[in-house]
Amino acid sequence: MIQRGGTGRPRAELDVKTTKAEPQPADFADVRATNLAVVLRHLRVNGPSSRASIAASTGLNKATVSSLTSDLIGQRLLRETGLSGNRIGRPSTVLALDGSAYAAIGLQVAADSLTALAVDFAGDRLLLWHRAFDGEPATTGAGRAVTAITALAQRAAVRVRQQGRRVLGLTVAVPGLVEDGTVRLSPPLGWSDVDLGGRLAGSLRQPGLDVAVANHAGLAALAELRHGGHPAGLDLTYVTGAAGLEAGIVADGRLLLGARGFTGQIGRFALGPAGSPTLQDLAGIEPLVRRTLPDVDPEALTDLGPAVEQLAVLARSGDAGAVAALRDTGCHLGQGLALVANLVNPEVIVLGDHYASLAEWIVPAAEAELARHTLAPAAGGARLVASALGRHAAALGAAVSHLDRIDTGHLPETR
Amino acid sequence: MIQRGGTGRPRAELDVKTTKAEPQPADFADVRATNLAVVLRHLRVNGPSSRASIAASTGLNKATVSSLTSDLIGQRLLRETGLSGNRIGRPSTVLALDGSAYAAIGLQVAADSLTALAVDFAGDRLLLWHRAFDGEPATTGAGRAVTAITALAQRAAVRVRQQGRRVLGLTVAVPGLVEDGTVRLSPPLGWSDVDLGGRLAGSLRQPGLDVAVANHAGLAALAELRHGGHPAGLDLTYVTGAAGLEAGIVADGRLLLGARGFTGQIGRFALGPAGSPTLQDLAGIEPLVRRTLPDVDPEALTDLGPAVEQLAVLARSGDAGAVAALRDTGCHLGQGLALVANLVNPEVIVLGDHYASLAEWIVPAAEAELARHTLAPAAGGARLVASALGRHAAALGAAVSHLDRIDTGHLPETR
Repeated sequence: MIQRGGTGRPRAELDVKTTKAEPQPADFADVRATNLAVVLRHLRVNGPSSRASIAASTGLNKATVSSLTSDLIGQRLLRETGLSGNRIGRPSTVLALDGSAYAAIGLQVAADSLTALAVDFAGDRLLLWHRAFDGEPATTGAGRAVTAITALAQRAAVRVRQQGRRVLGLTVAVPGLVEDGTVRLSPPLGWSDVDLGGRLAGSLRQPGLDVAVANHAGLAALAELRHGGHPAGLDLTYVTGAAGLEAGIVADGRLLLGARGFTGQIGRFALGPAGSPTLQDLAGIEPLVRRTLPDVDPEALTDLGPAVEQLAVLARSGDAGAVAALRDTGCHLGQGLALVANLVNPEVIVLGDHYASLAEWIVPAAEAELARHTLAPAAGGARLVASALGRHAAALGAAVSHLDRIDTGHLPETR
Repeated sequence: MIQRGGTGRPRAELDVKTTKAEPQPADFADVRATNLAVVLRHLRVNGPSSRASIAASTGLNKATVSSLTSDLIGQRLLRETGLSGNRIGRPSTVLALDGSAYAAIGLQVAADSLTALAVDFAGDRLLLWHRAFDGEPATTGAGRAVTAITALAQRAAVRVRQQGRRVLGLTVAVPGLVEDGTVRLSPPLGWSDVDLGGRLAGSLRQPGLDVAVANHAGLAALAELRHGGHPAGLDLTYVTGAAGLEAGIVADGRLLLGARGFTGQIGRFALGPAGSPTLQDLAGIEPLVRRTLPDVDPEALTDLGPAVEQLAVLARSGDAGAVAALRDTGCHLGQGLALVANLVNPEVIVLGDHYASLAEWIVPAAEAELARHTLAPAAGGARLVASALGRHAAALGAAVSHLDRIDTGHLPETR
């Protein structure tokens, strides 16, 4: 049966529904799931390890580690990779995550492009495709757009299966407000109330495939948390710099979902009388391009990439107008991020997409304003960094969200 | 040994340190702690119940419930309270939370007053004291202020012990930034880097007493979550309306702590050039009083209560200036709360302290601005309500934070 994701934001470490209800009774199955998670997370973070070193590092006893790893090898989630050369005693067998059986797919929808990305359980990339895309306003039902998304998802799933992997799940990352698989409102796409999850599930017809739709900023934050090179357990906020200005907030190792999944709408920030400009107006990439490159035809501005590159070239050549415009964007962005720092006190704020490409000129001004507008000295310790994940962070996060579920000890059902 | 709280914000449902690190191995002790928590939370939420109804409601089997409740009775956390009159079969013994053995104390520090409150484990109030207080800037080391706080804490602890209860813990709620027991920065008190936790622990000399210092808004949010009459598991933001303008954010049943506990600083919100007014300037209670009641001597404004009452009397009598000023405060507050709704998407925003007293004139304007400035329609479902907990919500939250710890299955150590 095709299952649709229950929330508009991706699952993070724990299932949202159980944490919001009364505490649930625990039994021995929970202990085993927790300990499976401990072993998987140890290998995810530390790389290949012997059973003895897993036991020593996690505090689990050796017999328990043997039993847990035996289960995981049987499920093709771990594999033995040879012998370690210990200096003392016999060499021991090394275990690693096994990517040969399972994979997950992420799709990233922007106003101008579609991205598909698949990773296996070991985290190795199986495919990365980009397609030009016309977001098509929902006035026409967004039918052609959904058809294009479904077709790309279908082709990616076929390709992954040809590579011998079972597809555990597929998540579509979109800008805007998502609830129960439906895009409630997406200003960048021009969509409202588009049941993307239902239409995908109806078209894909893949038994057992977990299909979800979620906000792109939250998914990118999950990708950043896992693959951004940060220490484990960091309180991190990811800021999108392509399709709209949104934030994904990770706190205490979990994505902040809020009541309905509508968190992170920083582009809408405004203070002042009616008609005051929003943070998107003041610090968004598209307004920046329109102000700085007036020769660019607004109708033709479907892909911001070339314009952003042109802006970087101008700034690098010392063009005073471009440098001043980027500094101005940085100032406004820093003021907006100070609101984030004052409210949720992240350790790191990661600038994604086009902000990352322009970080050299944006970050210094943003840092100064961030510090100046935050009550806590030095912005409560918040550091501003450019993402190293490039423009498909949300697609990566969409795929790895399905691996996260296994990493919490919820092993795939055997068929 | 006296233990000081490890974070500036109170513990919520789970210990923060373990959730931020790698997942920890579980064992049978964890299962038992989880199931003890399930039984305690069932009785906390549903009131006195028979063993059979606890088993039926929680899904624990009857033998497990018997064993767990027997432990809890032995620890004097539960007591038998008589027989239920079941319609079918024999009447069964009813169990209730036992308040006779343990209690906890909360102190609330504002610029003009100290409040002490104690509750027993069953949640019954043992004492509630108010004292006039001079916040005394830290330029003089805040020595007299700390002495006054310590003296009140000491008297409260003695009184609770005279009432036959063991004091499990004492938490002091203060406005501003708190870290590891130290008040890093508190604009309303005029304090910076005051080691209140250390000085309290040094003075109290109570073996086994857990002493903590935490932000007042977070503690008030915990009190609101438990005693505000809301459904369990609500995503709730509490807004302080007395000593400064701060927010306590509960998401997924847990207090949002951030990297260093410096969350909820909404009074500092500003967007615009240097010198732009902050949300505290535009929507704070003290600026409102100064603007609306120019006859009030600013130097004498140590207790806002009488001035707020005077404002309410004016508004009730239809005074156009007072009504307009309150509406203006409501507009700005609504714009600030829209930032909160856009970023963390709460289900309920609770206005505390003086905002609650003035809600009749503030809320309509605030609701309109909140909805207008939030991307999600109807502010993503966020409702604006006045707190029913009065002016000592933070003291109540400070006390119950120690009961929350037991409710998660961490029973007090026997001595």
